[in-house]
Amino acid sequence: MRTLYHYWLSASSRKVRIALGEKGLDFELQVEKISDRRPEFLALNPAGDVPVLVEEDGTSLADHTAICEYLDEAYPDTPLIGSTPTERAETRRLVSWFDGKFNAEVTENLVGEKLIKRYLGWGYPHAAAIRAGLQNIHYHLDYIAYLAERRNWLAGDTFSLADISAGAHLSAVDYLGDVPWDDHPEARLWYSRIKSRRCFRPLLGDALPGNPPPAHYADLDF
Amino acid sequence: MRTLYHYWLSASSRKVRIALGEKGLDFELQVEKISDRRPEFLALNPAGDVPVLVEEDGTSLADHTAICEYLDEAYPDTPLIGSTPTERAETRRLVSWFDGKFNAEVTENLVGEKLIKRYLGWGYPHAAAIRAGLQNIHYHLDYIAYLAERRNWLAGDTFSLADISAGAHLSAVDYLGDVPWDDHPEARLWYSRIKSRRCFRPLLGDALPGNPPPAHYADLDF
Repeated sequence: MRTLYHYWLSASSRKVRIALGEKGLDFELQVEKISDRRPEFLALNPAGDVPVLVEEDGTSLADHTAICEYLDEAYPDTPLIGSTPTERAETRRLVSWFDGKFNAEVTENLVGEKLIKRYLGWGYPHAAAIRAGLQNIHYHLDYIAYLAERRNWLAGDTFSLADISAGAHLSAVDYLGDVPWDDHPEARLWYSRIKSRRCFRPLLGDALPGNPPPAHYADLDF
Repeated sequence: MRTLYHYWLSASSRKVRIALGEKGLDFELQVEKISDRRPEFLALNPAGDVPVLVEEDGTSLADHTAICEYLDEAYPDTPLIGSTPTERAETRRLVSWFDGKFNAEVTENLVGEKLIKRYLGWGYPHAAAIRAGLQNIHYHLDYIAYLAERRNWLAGDTFSLADISAGAHLSAVDYLGDVPWDDHPEARLWYSRIKSRRCFRPLLGDALPGNPPPAHYADLDF
């Protein structure tokens, strides 16, 4: 069986989980506490980070960008990046926006500070970082609304890795109840379409021991 | 003429410059001081960052990952990523290593703190960050040596975007004289092969006003 090493609420692991689901590929999840730095895991990925995907033939793949590009090449049914080089550049620009900019400005400041740091034993949350995250998210939800008002999906006519990446990050922040949906009805509308996709459901079933999500987290009519 | 918006010593801009050169594509450089946040530039890239590539037909492309993937798709002669999905995943894993891990642990701490912060008016260098960068670079040079001892180029048999990304970051740090080449002869050997490529030469001719590079920077026998 294909195995995905992941960590609770790791947005980049969620991105790969959704992509695998959209491709219709079966996999089992294996939780990897990256702070343990297990030698067997470092042999799979010297960078020591999740996600890592191990295919049934033993091929191991590390880094969420490399894994998603690999999945789109190795399993070309249900393409997730686009058709022409220009369309594909637009998808990848937005994937970098969410994996880079949104991650640094929002996800790290909220999910990273409030939960992951503590779980991995990497110290205490910084109040200033959390305040910055709560402020920055408005700008990103405005940008999602701007795109969603002009296009069917974030990168164009079809559902793509841009929606997957944005959905992965927002779902992790939403687990904390930190997405101000009431102030951003257009972004909420886009997210409700993501949330109702079959491949998104398993994420909504995740529960961290001792840290249940808010009631609206798994609710499709939130 | 094709135009690349860049900034002095921006490693991600250097990566695109080298890729354009390897593809044999002509372009002119346009310096963009991103801290000015020019509305015309933000219209090309809402993220406000360099590099941005504008093709002769006016198509604009933002984000170094998206641009390099686009170049490899739109100009498929001289492929820079690899052949099979697995080879391509290995190239992209290493590209992410240098653009993500090396950038955060070394480039930002040295080039970012010592030069770019000051040029953009974003404050003063942090001594602790500089110390961390000078320490972290050893681990990365060891990893380059590990790869270069086992493979012809970093990602495998052929020169690839992994070498380009690593070379772009190291060249920016080398401009400061902060690469401890004497301690890492294997990495130096690999870099001397990068440095002697025709497409790398223009980078070695860059000179920041008031901040000349050390004598060995442009020397092929360093």
